Amino acid sequence: MEFLDQATARTWLATAVEEARTGLGEGGIPIGAALYGADGTLLGRGHNRRVQDGDPSMHAETAAFRAAGRQRSYSRTTMVTTLSPCWYCSGLVRQFGISRVVIGEAVTFHGGHDWLAEHGVEIVLLDDPECIGMMRDFIENNPALWNEDIGE
Amino acid sequence: MEFLDQATARTWLATAVEEARTGLGEGGIPIGAALYGADGTLLGRGHNRRVQDGDPSMHAETAAFRAAGRQRSYSRTTMVTTLSPCWYCSGLVRQFGISRVVIGEAVTFHGGHDWLAEHGVEIVLLDDPECIGMMRDFIENNPALWNEDIGE
Repeated sequence: MEFLDQATARTWLATAVEEARTGLGEGGIPIGAALYGADGTLLGRGHNRRVQDGDPSMHAETAAFRAAGRQRSYSRTTMVTTLSPCWYCSGLVRQFGISRVVIGEAVTFHGGHDWLAEHGVEIVLLDDPECIGMMRDFIENNPALWNEDIGE
Repeated sequence: MEFLDQATARTWLATAVEEARTGLGEGGIPIGAALYGADGTLLGRGHNRRVQDGDPSMHAETAAFRAAGRQRSYSRTTMVTTLSPCWYCSGLVRQFGISRVVIGEAVTFHGGHDWLAEHGVEIVLLDDPECIGMMRDFIENNPALWNEDIGE
């Protein structure tokens, strides 16, 4: 993989943050994601849809993956997400050979990104204050819904 | 978890096999799954929908999980699948605390079920000849489609 400069990582994260804000505005869980191709093309974007669609299978990352449609290969693609990916979404990244994950924050939730790093996935952790603030507020105000979304 | 007798495991597997056959009849990848509750209630069932819906996020297990809708807890539930779950679907099982996985076969594809067993999930591997035959024929006749579905 080529080196991902901080400016590009931040620009890509902004797409995921926009998705998270849209989800929050719909009354949903504010987690957003986007899948970028090797050449920087946006392949798909989405946000958690548990509340909006009553669909527990649509985490932000799976929504972005679905939006990208069928792809022959995920080699050199980057999954960008506002929050550290849970085991479900980490499993997605590993199974499909997504090469890199850009993560907004891993303070409010620490998912499977260390496991992904061990298995050769490049992890870019940004520690973004807006992502942290958005999730911290949401979890504080909706603990039951948050626990439902991560199966706790 | 209570002991799962072979007769119940086979009956539950038949639901997943029926889903796989439906998928095959639709021109899709023949993998089916069903999620059963602690009391043996069928919570949801589904099959791989990559071809039918152009949706790479709908593996059999995620389709059954989605069909079950929002659940407060997956404790003591059983995911039944015709094929060893890939990393994506294994991650689903681990994240949501699904307690048991009944697997039709792990001959044509060996996914993440050993990892699940290490993390306390009860694995029931049935080595079912019909499941093996259905996948073997499918992979032989559709190698590109199968590789696409597992990201290879």
